[in-house]
Amino acid sequence: MLRLTFLGTSAAQPTIHRNLSGLAVRRDRELFLVDCGEGTQRQMIRFGTGFDVDAIFFTHFHADHYLGAIGFLRTLSMQGRTTPMDVYGPRPAKRLLDVMLFTGTERLAFDVRIHEVAPGTEVRRDGCVMRAFATEHRIPSVGWALVEDERPGRFHPEKAAALGVPMGPLYGALQRGEAVTLADGRVVRPEEVVEPRRRGRTMAVTGDTRPCAGTIAAARGADLLVHDCTFGDPEQARAEETMHSTAREAARVAREAGVRELVLTHLSTRYDREWQPLVDEARAEWPGPLSVASDGMTIEVPLPHDLARAPSPG
Amino acid sequence: MLRLTFLGTSAAQPTIHRNLSGLAVRRDRELFLVDCGEGTQRQMIRFGTGFDVDAIFFTHFHADHYLGAIGFLRTLSMQGRTTPMDVYGPRPAKRLLDVMLFTGTERLAFDVRIHEVAPGTEVRRDGCVMRAFATEHRIPSVGWALVEDERPGRFHPEKAAALGVPMGPLYGALQRGEAVTLADGRVVRPEEVVEPRRRGRTMAVTGDTRPCAGTIAAARGADLLVHDCTFGDPEQARAEETMHSTAREAARVAREAGVRELVLTHLSTRYDREWQPLVDEARAEWPGPLSVASDGMTIEVPLPHDLARAPSPG
Repeated sequence: MLRLTFLGTSAAQPTIHRNLSGLAVRRDRELFLVDCGEGTQRQMIRFGTGFDVDAIFFTHFHADHYLGAIGFLRTLSMQGRTTPMDVYGPRPAKRLLDVMLFTGTERLAFDVRIHEVAPGTEVRRDGCVMRAFATEHRIPSVGWALVEDERPGRFHPEKAAALGVPMGPLYGALQRGEAVTLADGRVVRPEEVVEPRRRGRTMAVTGDTRPCAGTIAAARGADLLVHDCTFGDPEQARAEETMHSTAREAARVAREAGVRELVLTHLSTRYDREWQPLVDEARAEWPGPLSVASDGMTIEVPLPHDLARAPSPG
Repeated sequence: MLRLTFLGTSAAQPTIHRNLSGLAVRRDRELFLVDCGEGTQRQMIRFGTGFDVDAIFFTHFHADHYLGAIGFLRTLSMQGRTTPMDVYGPRPAKRLLDVMLFTGTERLAFDVRIHEVAPGTEVRRDGCVMRAFATEHRIPSVGWALVEDERPGRFHPEKAAALGVPMGPLYGALQRGEAVTLADGRVVRPEEVVEPRRRGRTMAVTGDTRPCAGTIAAARGADLLVHDCTFGDPEQARAEETMHSTAREAARVAREAGVRELVLTHLSTRYDREWQPLVDEARAEWPGPLSVASDGMTIEVPLPHDLARAPSPG
């Protein structure tokens, strides 16, 4: 499973319909947050993501992206969590989170391990890495790419049987990539019965950024790109001034990176309920699957071989 | 106008239906917040209180009562506020708010004046005082009583006319409480044409507390008491341990103080959607107007003379 739940899709200020930035990423047994704006914990309840968060990845430290972590960690503590929480983010993660998380009248019942990252930092998780990539905003910032490990190639037991391999431990050896010698002295090589290793899924989440080379590199061939889309064409100058992206710019990044699917988020309040112009402007630059995120929207990222138009495995 | 809007009525942790503590108090031209838990700014949008807050009054500094101020003040700054904001609260208001409000990557475009208060502190506002009163919680805490200034007595122009007072400046002098001398030398005293001065409205908001003498004193004869009601009878021991109140205890306070109306708030999640037991337990101790607050609930506190059963003016 690789499931995203958008917890907040508004830029800078909340609205009735959109909360501040927050994204839940459930990958098999792990649950991550990418950013955690004020009110995120309540959105998690509303949209049923669960509270068993394994790590929080911040893109940058503007208030609308991190304030919710303070209360969320306190809630976890009240609920009895004792497992340490890892949090990752660019400068000034250590200085700022150290103050914001640990000032106050309550103590947390678990450790919070604050990791300061820079573009290129890779965080090894269960079955994937979270890789920080360079973005361009007004303060230090990174995007986060989730890159799944390669998966073993598909094993064909019928081929093994046809070659005379007896069911049992030799099957496992072949699946692990080892050649096996049969009782009659013949050698069966794994590539005779196992398909090439298959790539995992990749997704990239930009946080706040101008369109940039860092995102294009990180999202190259990705299954999903979640991109800053604060503005539309009429606010091009404002997008440059505030170092955000327009829908059109986000779509160009998706095209250049050759991603499979594009989701636009972090909308200015002016597009709160009227986001069709953003879709239209992005559509002019990008023919693929496209959506404007809304709070509570859930996306399942399919495995490549599940896609009708999947590239060949490996 | 004296209008309360409940922005958050859940204790400690938010639920789908109830946000963390926050109360908007609109009194004529001024708007106050009493506490400002995470997500309060979004509740203010949802329930239409306006953002033109003149002052924030904190009852204490547990996270669920103040974290929302950080993001709310940033939103005000983005929206162009330049008017200073006064914030009031008990220890450690200065140390804690100084860190929590001013750490971060953004600057506020207006001054925040942090005032540390103790039981008995009076804050003069336009037409009323906000008076901090002693409550009993696990950390320094106060409740807040809003005490309106006395209002001039009702002027009876028909009586003035009957006494031969000519319409004009002498009317104003009489209304200000001055005796006037007519052209024929007769003196008309104000009490002949103006009723005694009338009391203003009083309301008291406890914040988190055990039932206590401080609340009873502050709420004596008040038009409205908003009281901690985290628990019901089955959690009596837990209420004592965590220094909160049960519905029954809150109702006893209302009875002893002789308030006009009681509103129960700050509900444990166990009463989130099933608060009738709290009503029943309070009802056993308190015969007067009673309600359990819900998010978005609005209460208008009428002037005493607007009440059918109002005490005599003055």
